[in-house]
Amino acid sequence: MHLKGCLTKLREARPLVHAITNYVTVNDCANITIALGGSPAMIDSKEEVTEFVRLANALYVNIGTLREEQKESIYLAMDKASELEIPIVLDPVGAAALKSRLMMVKDLLSRFKVACLKGNIAEIKCIAERDAKASGVDSLERGEGVELVTAELSNYYKTVVVATGPKDYLSKGEKTYLVNNGSPLLGRITGSGCMLGIITGAFLGSVDNDLKACLAATVTYGVVGELAEKSVRQSSDLGSFRMKIFDHTASLTEEILCDAEDYYEYK
Amino acid sequence: MHLKGCLTKLREARPLVHAITNYVTVNDCANITIALGGSPAMIDSKEEVTEFVRLANALYVNIGTLREEQKESIYLAMDKASELEIPIVLDPVGAAALKSRLMMVKDLLSRFKVACLKGNIAEIKCIAERDAKASGVDSLERGEGVELVTAELSNYYKTVVVATGPKDYLSKGEKTYLVNNGSPLLGRITGSGCMLGIITGAFLGSVDNDLKACLAATVTYGVVGELAEKSVRQSSDLGSFRMKIFDHTASLTEEILCDAEDYYEYK
Amino acid sequence: MHLKGCLTKLREARPLVHAITNYVTVNDCANITIALGGSPAMIDSKEEVTEFVRLANALYVNIGTLREEQKESIYLAMDKASELEIPIVLDPVGAAALKSRLMMVKDLLSRFKVACLKGNIAEIKCIAERDAKASGVDSLERGEGVELVTAELSNYYKTVVVATGPKDYLSKGEKTYLVNNGSPLLGRITGSGCMLGIITGAFLGSVDNDLKACLAATVTYGVVGELAEKSVRQSSDLGSFRMKIFDHTASLTEEILCDAEDYYEYK
Repeated sequence: MHLKGCLTKLREARPLVHAITNYVTVNDCANITIALGGSPAMIDSKEEVTEFVRLANALYVNIGTLREEQKESIYLAMDKASELEIPIVLDPVGAAALKSRLMMVKDLLSRFKVACLKGNIAEIKCIAERDAKASGVDSLERGEGVELVTAELSNYYKTVVVATGPKDYLSKGEKTYLVNNGSPLLGRITGSGCMLGIITGAFLGSVDNDLKACLAATVTYGVVGELAEKSVRQSSDLGSFRMKIFDHTASLTEEILCDAEDYYEYK
Repeated sequence: MHLKGCLTKLREARPLVHAITNYVTVNDCANITIALGGSPAMIDSKEEVTEFVRLANALYVNIGTLREEQKESIYLAMDKASELEIPIVLDPVGAAALKSRLMMVKDLLSRFKVACLKGNIAEIKCIAERDAKASGVDSLERGEGVELVTAELSNYYKTVVVATGPKDYLSKGEKTYLVNNGSPLLGRITGSGCMLGIITGAFLGSVDNDLKACLAATVTYGVVGELAEKSVRQSSDLGSFRMKIFDHTASLTEEILCDAEDYYEYK
Repeated sequence: MHLKGCLTKLREARPLVHAITNYVTVNDCANITIALGGSPAMIDSKEEVTEFVRLANALYVNIGTLREEQKESIYLAMDKASELEIPIVLDPVGAAALKSRLMMVKDLLSRFKVACLKGNIAEIKCIAERDAKASGVDSLERGEGVELVTAELSNYYKTVVVATGPKDYLSKGEKTYLVNNGSPLLGRITGSGCMLGIITGAFLGSVDNDLKACLAATVTYGVVGELAEKSVRQSSDLGSFRMKIFDHTASLTEEILCDAEDYYEYK
């Protein structure tokens, strides 16, 4: 699967991504979407989401800081987005640590049409009902067997599944991809996963093939991480690294992406 | 109208700006206010706003992420601020995209004394009931005729109207100004408009003439944008640009401002 | 009291700090905790806090933007944390400006076991019922007599009291420390106090002696402030300074800390 042209399409389309997300990393989510070429809108009032989501090219739902009103808004927005066939990205933050969130995620997946379920490996495993030793919400585990889990989960819920970790796994039924792009520093700033989530929404809102859109997002974000890592003086410069993420997202070209991309189909 | 002395007044007065704002850009709003020389306080609990706004020199209201409780708090705070003649800046984020917000903005404008209504051109046009093709909440349109819209709206609601875009328009009844200062990069980070909004509050809280205060804020922010743009390696360095906004706000002097200011009265 | 080894312990333990905090500086709180070596989780839904706090090594409570639901969550989380003897840091933001917050803070202190009460000098004085001229929530006063106030308050509530200002005071009953480390620039960015609060939680979650943990946090944060100040071109580079905070937190070593630490026991 070739990714050439996806970034250009996104920048031409300027997809409007409606985000219902946590208040910890919401600023980063907005800024990375603009830097990439999309248009973010963070709206989660229950009186507004149904009206607003109609305008959107994609809906990004992240349950990182879930409150009563936001929970209702998520159901309302996903219901309308499903009806209008607007692609939805679901980010199950904390599903490995909190049973109530895991149950909510499963409920959302069974009720609505989700284009992409993107979580870290522990979260994806939890949703797939395998063992996962979750330590908080950023838990990561070794990647053995993840390709099988993602494929099974993808078949079960008819959605693209993205499991992030030292390597990222993407699966849609028969096809499973492994992405080597990325930087260990991405695991040392907050909002790393959230930013991948919202730009996955931006690609889904502008590229027709859903697996291709998710793969383009994961590879793009991994490459940006690599470029940002290379541009800091030392790997502990986490503040500088975070700033460089936005610089490299905005200055990214198809050529840079093509030179750096490192992924393959899993057989 | 000369702006000399406004920045010095603000820094001497250290105005306390009470902000009820969205959770996307709230950190940027707080940091730019401090960097400029003011003192921000973000308080939006309905049980606290009435008590707190009495202490403030200005109130900044931004409806970017409107929830039930915050909506109530806005009415309570604006009511008390009107009574105490504390200047209010109203930022109608999303009023061009969501009818419920447009109605709320009109309701607030008719009930309370608003010192400054500051929005992007699409929002201001919408409130003025002219056609506006809103694409999301960051919509911008070409500026034809904006000077008339701002003047009309200013007369109707007895408030200073600021319409931001490639050029910024300010109007108070008979007088209309056009500000050329600014940077296209300001449109490529989130919170750009919000930061202008809150520093307009800081100027209104320390400079007596309301039109002068709004003009000083708009010119100051535009100049900071220009300086930040000049200090980055390339125009796609959006992360660096955002950081430089705060550097240049804090290091700004009357001299720098005076050299760079570029505005004129519209005839 | 020697602080050597505290930072290493923290990095080995990777303490999970559950934070219920304000939405203004929450991103900074998360990033500094990760940069230091801990693991932050921002969870404040009333349906989730009781379940989640069991997993945590420390609980950080900051009342900077208090809403109805969050208020309930604070009581629930502090109740469970007290029961399980998980150390709690209480950050009484705004207690010098709002009577309702002052009353809530006193109520929390009398109901629950708080390991550390950390506020600015005006807040600590207010809680101690001494005079404090609060101007907003960032008010600072001259430090005369603060050592007595902190000692009295510590005895009264059986907690470590940290009062921040140009110099920081720490007290646990008989012992009172004064910390000279720090930078005036820390007072010119938002979130400075909040970041100290959450890393105090991280130290309390990994170092047994509570006074030692609080002192280590205060000295560490002060040293990071000094390093960040030294690394910017000029003292008005507040955006750059803020970014450097994260760089220097992550690259800090026991050696750097040992060379720079400047505190003494008050006699």
